[in-house]
Amino acid sequence: MSSFSRFTPLISRLPATVPFVGPEAIERQRNLPVKARIGANESGFGPSPKVHLALQAASSDIWKYADPENFDLKAALAAHYGLAADNFAVGEGVDDLLGLTVRLVIEQGLPVVTSLGGYPTFNFHVNGFGGQLVTVPYRQDREDLDGLLEAVRRENAPLAYLANPDNPMGSWHESHDVVAFARALPETCLLILDEAYSETAPAGSIPAVDALIDLPNVLRMRTFSKAYGLAGARIGYAIGTPGTVSAFDKIRNHFGMVRTSVAAALAALADQDYLTATVARIIAARERISSIARQNGLQPLASATNFVAVDCGRDPAYARSIVDGLMQHGVFIRMPGVAPLNRCIRISAGLPEDLDLLEQALPIVLRDIG
Amino acid sequence: MSSFSRFTPLISRLPATVPFVGPEAIERQRNLPVKARIGANESGFGPSPKVHLALQAASSDIWKYADPENFDLKAALAAHYGLAADNFAVGEGVDDLLGLTVRLVIEQGLPVVTSLGGYPTFNFHVNGFGGQLVTVPYRQDREDLDGLLEAVRRENAPLAYLANPDNPMGSWHESHDVVAFARALPETCLLILDEAYSETAPAGSIPAVDALIDLPNVLRMRTFSKAYGLAGARIGYAIGTPGTVSAFDKIRNHFGMVRTSVAAALAALADQDYLTATVARIIAARERISSIARQNGLQPLASATNFVAVDCGRDPAYARSIVDGLMQHGVFIRMPGVAPLNRCIRISAGLPEDLDLLEQALPIVLRDIG
Repeated sequence: MSSFSRFTPLISRLPATVPFVGPEAIERQRNLPVKARIGANESGFGPSPKVHLALQAASSDIWKYADPENFDLKAALAAHYGLAADNFAVGEGVDDLLGLTVRLVIEQGLPVVTSLGGYPTFNFHVNGFGGQLVTVPYRQDREDLDGLLEAVRRENAPLAYLANPDNPMGSWHESHDVVAFARALPETCLLILDEAYSETAPAGSIPAVDALIDLPNVLRMRTFSKAYGLAGARIGYAIGTPGTVSAFDKIRNHFGMVRTSVAAALAALADQDYLTATVARIIAARERISSIARQNGLQPLASATNFVAVDCGRDPAYARSIVDGLMQHGVFIRMPGVAPLNRCIRISAGLPEDLDLLEQALPIVLRDIG
Repeated sequence: MSSFSRFTPLISRLPATVPFVGPEAIERQRNLPVKARIGANESGFGPSPKVHLALQAASSDIWKYADPENFDLKAALAAHYGLAADNFAVGEGVDDLLGLTVRLVIEQGLPVVTSLGGYPTFNFHVNGFGGQLVTVPYRQDREDLDGLLEAVRRENAPLAYLANPDNPMGSWHESHDVVAFARALPETCLLILDEAYSETAPAGSIPAVDALIDLPNVLRMRTFSKAYGLAGARIGYAIGTPGTVSAFDKIRNHFGMVRTSVAAALAALADQDYLTATVARIIAARERISSIARQNGLQPLASATNFVAVDCGRDPAYARSIVDGLMQHGVFIRMPGVAPLNRCIRISAGLPEDLDLLEQALPIVLRDIG
């Protein structure tokens, strides 16, 4: 396959791996339709009906670039949180902001601290900029705050990643522990505090929005992709000091936001009643997933997210065979990629009909595997 | 303003400049409404009505991430062009692909050849990755193919940029000259051939789609933002050898595409009759802009794009005063940023009512300036 001969040495070294295989690719590879899409931590409950109206209204303006300053969305976020507009940077999903953050901080060979088995897309970006991943194992299926702090100090790492609540395990830390961790970090280490699942977390697990806002070395990242039901719209944001978030402006794709998506995010943010109702449905779905797991002799882990990690109690091959077996029935789920987390499968909250399919298929799959 | 203390040296050196100020920001700064939005080379004619139907239909799936492989869109592009799906990379607008391409090739200090006054967003990305811009002046308001080739050879540049047709001047080269230029480049230089305005170009100016497809060092970039009327959807694509375009997969934001936008692009591509009709309207608008310019003693340049550069015949301050004066009447246009191009103003094709406003305002503005 003839390729340009002079990509950078870093690019030439990079593998062709992708962070996740999408359900559409699985459908094509296996020639099977996805009937229950409960693998990518999307929200089958969808966004507020007002979002659909906003999308329709914005459709007639799709010929216009979105405002590159994201003025309206930042103003709405500021009002929602009681912060200033310049505490926010808006991006094309948290994934985009993660890549930009790595680029802001990492030169080739610099260490980046994260958890062993943490979010693969963050690792993809670290590798993509030549950073050296320094990983800390989970402790009792939670990210190890003490271990992460120790690794940052030992390595003099300029960048660290913590998801609270955590993906892929659904676990969480108490707010005061997260705050203590962030404040204990050296100011020479930028902490990405990924709070993609903050809306579904129990009270007491998410620091107040102003709890860390004085720290120039903390970026809290949130998204409209999970509880707000807008994964396909690609809208994420970072919260931090004005000085730190303004650094994104030096490198971001200023005209990268999609006009209809921004309208969707504004409508979603404005309908907090819908969000509250959706979170209740997500929590009910978590409980039902947990119940289905237990009925089948599997052990669900407590979850603060819109998914449940289920301990299958055996080796990774066993978990993999459950994932593959469920897909045979049109039930798309995923599993963690790294030991010991990969004894688990990960099932996203979904509509009752999705969980009906899961409930029907799981015992058949387990019986067939034996 | 307290900021994280350990951004990379490159990031710390970068200025806070942005490639373009959006019309919304101008409205806010000057407290004036934009009535005729004919400054950003968008298409006020909008996309096909079928696009609006597609957007509406896709709205119900906005909770799902888009297919990260962009399978359907690549297949549709392949069918449209008679190429293979693996000749295409899809991105969040050409701007996104430009940034990724720079990242694939440029390490700090490496030279990048482009035209003096060429597309600012490309320069933004080159600066953002620490490349050294080597600029070649325009010749008679066209990019200088011989000069660009000479600069690539002299500097042993690994990356060069050519827009055909050109932005901001609207000029173009004949197809055979573009092909000869591309084939004369050393294979160690990757050429970005930006064809964002290919749909509105005269016959004979755009190389056949297979004319350069054997060259691993050529990426042709196209977009749904201009003639297709989908600037706000952010869909661009690169055409090249499978080996070269696959390099994007190593670093791109795999889940970065917006699901509704992909549906919009598919519908737009499928309605070539609408595109043909729109191009006719764009050409008519170009002629009317040219006529309005002449009526006011200004000299329109021939254009292959969806805008017209108008030579105002005096210094940059004069052109700037026309741009600012028109905005006073709600007519948003732009101008090139660099001499000698900045003797011109740049006016995008627009609806008849937009050009009515231009026609009314321009003589008043010129009279007021004197």
